[in-house]
Amino acid sequence: MATRKALLVGIFVFDEVEVLDFCGPFEVFSVSSATGSPTLGAFDVKLVAQTMEPVSTRGGMRVLPDFTLDDHPPFDILVIPGGPGTRRDINDPRVIEWIRHSQPRVALTSVCTGALLLAEAGRLDNMEATTHAGSHDWLAQYEAVTLRPEARFVDNGWVLTSAGVSAGIDMALHLVERLMGAETATFTATVMEYDRRAMTPEI
Amino acid sequence: MATRKALLVGIFVFDEVEVLDFCGPFEVFSVSSATGSPTLGAFDVKLVAQTMEPVSTRGGMRVLPDFTLDDHPPFDILVIPGGPGTRRDINDPRVIEWIRHSQPRVALTSVCTGALLLAEAGRLDNMEATTHAGSHDWLAQYEAVTLRPEARFVDNGWVLTSAGVSAGIDMALHLVERLMGAETATFTATVMEYDRRAMTPEI
Repeated sequence: MATRKALLVGIFVFDEVEVLDFCGPFEVFSVSSATGSPTLGAFDVKLVAQTMEPVSTRGGMRVLPDFTLDDHPPFDILVIPGGPGTRRDINDPRVIEWIRHSQPRVALTSVCTGALLLAEAGRLDNMEATTHAGSHDWLAQYEAVTLRPEARFVDNGWVLTSAGVSAGIDMALHLVERLMGAETATFTATVMEYDRRAMTPEI
Repeated sequence: MATRKALLVGIFVFDEVEVLDFCGPFEVFSVSSATGSPTLGAFDVKLVAQTMEPVSTRGGMRVLPDFTLDDHPPFDILVIPGGPGTRRDINDPRVIEWIRHSQPRVALTSVCTGALLLAEAGRLDNMEATTHAGSHDWLAQYEAVTLRPEARFVDNGWVLTSAGVSAGIDMALHLVERLMGAETATFTATVMEYDRRAMTPEI
């Protein structure tokens, strides 16, 4: 594993993005790649935004993007988080067109209301998907999307969506397990002292 | 509640801070204060660092501090997160002296290996405390500290410490419940779709 090139993970950030929506997956991919992991250097995680100016999250944390929508390297994995700012970005043609034409090599993913941006861009057409519990009705308005309200996250193969906020951690751990194996996923959850939740609740 | 002044939460950030260590509590205090919460505007969360330059977390996320150690308003709650950078900061007299003399009005808290910085500064003397499972032996070297290895977090009243990474979320939710009531804590965990964990495991 040590000589394999890192998978490049791009996380979209925008004003009023939900902090844990993007920091949860950031933490998962980062720990999966850190000293002690069976897959050292597995992922390289970067933030991508509309401009290089600081982005102000929900609650006012300011983070610096690494790339812009117009100028970033090809991502292997793209993460679209949610947050109050999605209600603005869903009406922003630049964001929606960027998502519509994004072709991450391995996976296109959303956390929380990020699923609405994917749906608006047509990326969830003819797929099952989930989003934050408070936005199930919103996602259900997209007739081409099959809502899976009970799911913690949904894996369509190339497209994955997760439920609200902390569910992005479970989706990212699932993706790490798919790509890097159970040993790395277990290492990561152990370092994070996180109790993983399954894709769907046990009956 | 609406007219009460927000409690000011300061979160220390430093190079190689663990992302979820500080973003978990940030998210909890932020959601507790957001639209829909029974305690709108309860907390105002700010980042404090050695300088105003961008801080590079573990994994390379760059965040902008709001204040420096030498120039910040009085905090009601101070959060000291962990991460690989604690192994440098524990030998930095400026950091340790700042922690030694910090007097947040309501609570002095740590997440993960942030407890080592509190211990080094003497703030855990004659108290029970916890830290990341991988650093229990390190914290146990401080003879004045009683390690509680089984605890998810430990509440001494004014001083609270949590176990590793995601445990900071549970500690912050506990503090929100103590300060703002169960309704706000439940609202916050629900918005975050987070399964809370108790202070100590059930027997």
